[in-house]
Amino acid sequence: MIILYELGAAGGARYSAFSWRTRMALMHKGLAFETHPVRVADKAAIAFSGQGKVPIIRDGAHVISDSWNIAEHLETAYPDAPSLFGGPSGLALSRFVNAVADRQLMPALAPACALSVARMLDAGDAAYLRAVFEKAFGRTLEEMHAGREASVKAFRRALDPLRATLRRQAFLGGAAPAYADYVMMSPLQWARIVHAEPVLEADDTIGAWFERMLDLFQGYARAEPARAVHG
Amino acid sequence: MIILYELGAAGGARYSAFSWRTRMALMHKGLAFETHPVRVADKAAIAFSGQGKVPIIRDGAHVISDSWNIAEHLETAYPDAPSLFGGPSGLALSRFVNAVADRQLMPALAPACALSVARMLDAGDAAYLRAVFEKAFGRTLEEMHAGREASVKAFRRALDPLRATLRRQAFLGGAAPAYADYVMMSPLQWARIVHAEPVLEADDTIGAWFERMLDLFQGYARAEPARAVHG
Repeated sequence: MIILYELGAAGGARYSAFSWRTRMALMHKGLAFETHPVRVADKAAIAFSGQGKVPIIRDGAHVISDSWNIAEHLETAYPDAPSLFGGPSGLALSRFVNAVADRQLMPALAPACALSVARMLDAGDAAYLRAVFEKAFGRTLEEMHAGREASVKAFRRALDPLRATLRRQAFLGGAAPAYADYVMMSPLQWARIVHAEPVLEADDTIGAWFERMLDLFQGYARAEPARAVHG
Repeated sequence: MIILYELGAAGGARYSAFSWRTRMALMHKGLAFETHPVRVADKAAIAFSGQGKVPIIRDGAHVISDSWNIAEHLETAYPDAPSLFGGPSGLALSRFVNAVADRQLMPALAPACALSVARMLDAGDAAYLRAVFEKAFGRTLEEMHAGREASVKAFRRALDPLRATLRRQAFLGGAAPAYADYVMMSPLQWARIVHAEPVLEADDTIGAWFERMLDLFQGYARAEPARAVHG
């Protein structure tokens, strides 16, 4: 049984965009796993991994951190399960998609979601997250929240290549979903759970794709409830 | 013998970013082809294709326009030649790369290059191109040229996911170049030919990759001379 260590709020929410990439990859592979919540500030709980960030999986003797490394491990360790990448070319290009998500999409969206995440956490975790985000973005969480409409618009613009692609094919991976789809859905799943307003416009092609992603594996990602604190 | 119709300046320069995607794809496939220059304003010369844009290829009975469609045609028509996509997953993800280049990279770079291109063309073509660019960007060519440093900086920022990817693998396609590499090199090849200053910083990881791209096929892309008119 694979164990996934991931961020978990006191109220039970599993909101980490990066962990959702791993969750969907595990479902895609059809692997049994259990999840283990880790508080944002609790570095002692994950010291066994030799580094300080979740998600982490423990798979028998293997301990692997970083959602991308986990995906590569799963593809290598379980070659007979459905492929996450569709071969070496797909893996190489998925790494580019991963970089787009990490370096363009998440930074655009994060300021819009940061205060909402902090409100879901207990006082210690909220303070820890506040310090991390305020250092990264050079603004207070309240300033980021006040500017959330501009952040959401920048995020929508950054999604434009995905939008154009999905006008031509059902999934980023082609006719069926692949790891690249899980990467790209991860900021949207994060926003669905923590953000009070929809981040996509109602008629956005990406919205229909995201609904298909939420439907996968008997609605696995949809089962995580929206937890936004309004106002 | 495949015939490639592409933009060609009076002085002989073959500067079209989109045509360079097709040229590199033809070389990758090892196909014999000849190129046929078309003036920007000469829509009559390409009326046979039923539309108004180059590149176009004539491959026996097939006439195909749009660099992406041409790549798909070559992959389908010449399945025994080296693959451009590495399978269905690679093709699907390459379409996303193509959309990134078309919707983020080219629009960032184009204002920096537009006046330089116009200077390479004869008066009729220059006037045609001026009208197209000034309508698209809402500024005169001279205004775009004056703001070229800001455009180049925006282009470098937009390359960030490629930069991160190339720190982990030799080519976007993995261990060897693929169509996604030809797409991503195309704005850089365009800038190399028409832009007076380097668009990459000297220590950029992308620069080393671009040199590898210029080396391919006995230095095929490098053989096209830089034509920038300085000042």
